[in-house]
Amino acid sequence: MDFSMFKNLLTKYDSFIITSHVKPDGDALGSVLALTMALKKYGKKVLPIINDEVPKKYRFLPRCGDVRPFIPEVDKAEVMICLDSGDPERLEFKRDLRDICQLVVNIDHHRTNSMYGDMNLVDDSYSSVGEMVYFLLKALDISIDYDIAVCLYTSIITDTGSVKYSNTTPSCLRILAELVELGVKPEVISREVFEKKSLESVMLLKEVLGTLRVCEDGKLAYMTVTKNMMKTTGAKEEDIDGFINYAREIEGVEVAIIFKEQENLKVKVGLRANEWVDVSKIAEEFGGGGHARAAGCTIEGPMHKVQELVLASIKKYLKEGFR
Amino acid sequence: MDFSMFKNLLTKYDSFIITSHVKPDGDALGSVLALTMALKKYGKKVLPIINDEVPKKYRFLPRCGDVRPFIPEVDKAEVMICLDSGDPERLEFKRDLRDICQLVVNIDHHRTNSMYGDMNLVDDSYSSVGEMVYFLLKALDISIDYDIAVCLYTSIITDTGSVKYSNTTPSCLRILAELVELGVKPEVISREVFEKKSLESVMLLKEVLGTLRVCEDGKLAYMTVTKNMMKTTGAKEEDIDGFINYAREIEGVEVAIIFKEQENLKVKVGLRANEWVDVSKIAEEFGGGGHARAAGCTIEGPMHKVQELVLASIKKYLKEGFR
Ligand SMILES: [Mn+2]
Ligand SMILES: [Mn+2]
Repeated sequence: MDFSMFKNLLTKYDSFIITSHVKPDGDALGSVLALTMALKKYGKKVLPIINDEVPKKYRFLPRCGDVRPFIPEVDKAEVMICLDSGDPERLEFKRDLRDICQLVVNIDHHRTNSMYGDMNLVDDSYSSVGEMVYFLLKALDISIDYDIAVCLYTSIITDTGSVKYSNTTPSCLRILAELVELGVKPEVISREVFEKKSLESVMLLKEVLGTLRVCEDGKLAYMTVTKNMMKTTGAKEEDIDGFINYAREIEGVEVAIIFKEQENLKVKVGLRANEWVDVSKIAEEFGGGGHARAAGCTIEGPMHKVQELVLASIKKYLKEGFR
Repeated sequence: MDFSMFKNLLTKYDSFIITSHVKPDGDALGSVLALTMALKKYGKKVLPIINDEVPKKYRFLPRCGDVRPFIPEVDKAEVMICLDSGDPERLEFKRDLRDICQLVVNIDHHRTNSMYGDMNLVDDSYSSVGEMVYFLLKALDISIDYDIAVCLYTSIITDTGSVKYSNTTPSCLRILAELVELGVKPEVISREVFEKKSLESVMLLKEVLGTLRVCEDGKLAYMTVTKNMMKTTGAKEEDIDGFINYAREIEGVEVAIIFKEQENLKVKVGLRANEWVDVSKIAEEFGGGGHARAAGCTIEGPMHKVQELVLASIKKYLKEGFR
């Protein structure tokens, strides 16, 4: 991908809003902050805007206090740069982006990107938008200082799961090497992004592991989170993220499920597969969707009814393959 | 470190035993297998010997079936190359190494290495012995094929905890990049090394999390593993590895402890610190030892007595610093 076209943009325009999706992760925040600092160094007026709270775990990021939600009537810019967002709705400006700016630049690595920008730099061969921002800065001859390095490092390790996912490329590993040379401490960032856990989340994990059931000759594993567990442990919804992996990582398991009891007699169902089951097919059956190995749906009914339904569907799939 | 001196060794000698410590980890096995394959390519006679079983999780490593324990009277070589072992006892040959070979070469990255070789290549600035073997092969002009690449990749990600530990250097990140270019699939190796878990180990985790206690204003967290838990879950000793991190990773915790009930009324105590406590001091107090942030000891007595003793010592340290 040729990022040098970006140079004309900086010749022509002076004010920028840089934004990303709600429920921001390390790539969203890291890339917004890195590009904001870089364009400021270049002498531009820049507003980093995310229409959501910065999660506690990412508050170690340099200058993350500058990020805030959009204020209508006040925030205006010539150009809006949208990072790591496959469609404009996930940015939650709740109005046409062209009411805020003249030009929309869409920089993303999601295959499903809807190409909503006036300029679209979209390429799913990049591990993260942080990696794309790195090449952008190289093309613009903007030097990477320590603060920018911390943000880009956070982007890349978040989206590659600390170089464990299949999007881990030679290119992103070499960028990590360069960022460590610039002073980034891998153990410090990793502790912030992957390790720090609340006591509440560990207590919830204990409760949820207690519900783990394995069936179908060890191929199917599932866990249950009740409203009561959430209340007694004081854990937050976001603490449940990743629990499903305890079921998925058990040797021999092909399908893992987590059932999360919601308000109003609904159950949220998370589905993961390891090798061959297309769980998006199962999620679609119940009005949900997703990817082949990671999908989800929300089903009305009491917990035991929902479990009966979903387990029956998966057992059938495991026996017959999908019909 | 200059590895070219190794070249003379290959001119002078023809037969090699390559070995590493018992309870072999990914670095021990990865480096033994990589160097074995490389020296065979160089036309040498090589025996890969480890005096222990290859753990199930590492059986995906290429040619790991060639590794076996030492057979006295049968196994002889001119040179023994010892990898990743700080002292000769951990190799468990149970005799003087010079009864087996003429020359002992000691290649290691542990600061505490006792320099027991006739030739000692010891440098703790390397992330892993796998990284040292990489530079050795470069110095010898031995090309790295796919199988060797898988072994070196496993070495480096095991010892850096998938680039999360402080030994993650620009050098080792660039080597990972090169190994991915040679065909290594990061997601495949990571699943083998970090993800696959036995059902027994997950059930044990549930039990152990149930014993988690936090005290001293959240700075001290500890967990208990009883013989009974081991029996009822059917888990193995090695399944306990890493459990202590659930205590250590809780926000605000400085010292984490795991108490493991042993046979003969003994308790094995694992100690970790996050930032400032030197737990090796505490371990030494009870006849153990280790590093500043990771140490251990074994104490005689029933569980409640041992816990009383150790907790008292740590509480004193947390209040007063070490005297
Ligand atoms: Mn991303
Ligand atoms: Mn090692």
